Amino acid sequence: MLYGTGEDIMAQAKLVLMRHGQSLGNEANLFTGWYDLDLSPTGHEEARKAGRLMRERGLQFDAAHCSMLQRTIHTLHHCLDELDQVWLPEYHSWRLNERHYGALQGLNKEDTIALYGREQVQQWRRGFDVTPPDVALGSPHYPGHDPRYATLPKADIPRGESLATTTKRVLPYWQNTLLPSLQQGQSLLVITHGTVMRALIGHLNGLDPDDARTLEIPTGTPLVYEVNSVGIMRRLGYLNPPS
Amino acid sequence: MLYGTGEDIMAQAKLVLMRHGQSLGNEANLFTGWYDLDLSPTGHEEARKAGRLMRERGLQFDAAHCSMLQRTIHTLHHCLDELDQVWLPEYHSWRLNERHYGALQGLNKEDTIALYGREQVQQWRRGFDVTPPDVALGSPHYPGHDPRYATLPKADIPRGESLATTTKRVLPYWQNTLLPSLQQGQSLLVITHGTVMRALIGHLNGLDPDDARTLEIPTGTPLVYEVNSVGIMRRLGYLNPPS
Repeated sequence: MLYGTGEDIMAQAKLVLMRHGQSLGNEANLFTGWYDLDLSPTGHEEARKAGRLMRERGLQFDAAHCSMLQRTIHTLHHCLDELDQVWLPEYHSWRLNERHYGALQGLNKEDTIALYGREQVQQWRRGFDVTPPDVALGSPHYPGHDPRYATLPKADIPRGESLATTTKRVLPYWQNTLLPSLQQGQSLLVITHGTVMRALIGHLNGLDPDDARTLEIPTGTPLVYEVNSVGIMRRLGYLNPPS
Repeated sequence: MLYGTGEDIMAQAKLVLMRHGQSLGNEANLFTGWYDLDLSPTGHEEARKAGRLMRERGLQFDAAHCSMLQRTIHTLHHCLDELDQVWLPEYHSWRLNERHYGALQGLNKEDTIALYGREQVQQWRRGFDVTPPDVALGSPHYPGHDPRYATLPKADIPRGESLATTTKRVLPYWQNTLLPSLQQGQSLLVITHGTVMRALIGHLNGLDPDDARTLEIPTGTPLVYEVNSVGIMRRLGYLNPPS
């Protein structure tokens, strides 16, 4: 979908939300979550393409936000290179991290289905408030061992998240960081993950949890919102190349 | 190379200052200054090599700082990739920009010598308080036209800087941003430019302006300081690969 013809894209502050390009975890069909796998070669190319597309549409930003995971950071850097805006202020937040997949992190989805059955795995994947089994405290997937989360209060370190608990830790970043900047007229580029996109789109578009949880979020495809002066967001849609 | 044998590199907070890798401007022998040329292929490789060297020495950081110019930003990203620390907080400041070379920016150094004579050019390059001719307000090299400096007060936008005026705008960043973080025990990676390195080293090592202005600063070579709890800096030296 495309917003389009006649629309003055540069008239008002913009929010662009985008899921990172394809990761090595997507490619290998893993539950990835906070597992810090890089982009696949396809993902690197998707990210550059998204940057070129935004540049062609004349999008420019005042600041950029992404998660603490290299697949969003590298996606962001590719986009900023193509936009010739590598100098933008750049913020990394754990609140924009993918949902933590608990004890499932690093497992292949098909293997997990074979082990637990399709219905249970579907519940874990798409149930709104279904939390996966906790990650063991001794596991390398427990974020408490990772220096990048060393300053997080222990209570904020997840052992496994549902879409509901992910939404709960994403929204303060929206309310306290992104929304105030947008209301001041700043255009923001936010590179994040599938579940976080579901949480933010659900919030911005006032979706029922049931609708939010089933949204399919394409990799490396910018979703553009326009912001008016009181911070009301109008969804302009995904930015796709002209077909 | 200086420290090495027996020195416990991880005992205290570290400051690493580094000039970016070779730029296309260095390669073409230009007065580059705030002209935003990228790294050369050699420069990209120097940056990756510096990152690997820091990793091999066990250096890890709490935050990273660089200028608003892509040659330091790309150098930083290469280093952080090699250090597996792309998630670090990353700050871009105009105060860490190279000296603005005024009307000389973009000119070839040999051509400039042919035009103005070797002595005049040597004065411009290395005189402590010698300012190059002002850049014209209509020139693309006047930073007032560049969106990345749009929030700078007009009085701070340079039209040409000497080592003296460069030092004057670098030191507030040291005093107000870098030093307080170091005193809190944070280790910092700071990627900047030749003239800014001269200004910072001159300040940290208490050099006479005459000594600071003649320092040769290698590209892509980490210079390590150790910080004690009251913020006194001890120079450990350049980090070179074992020979």
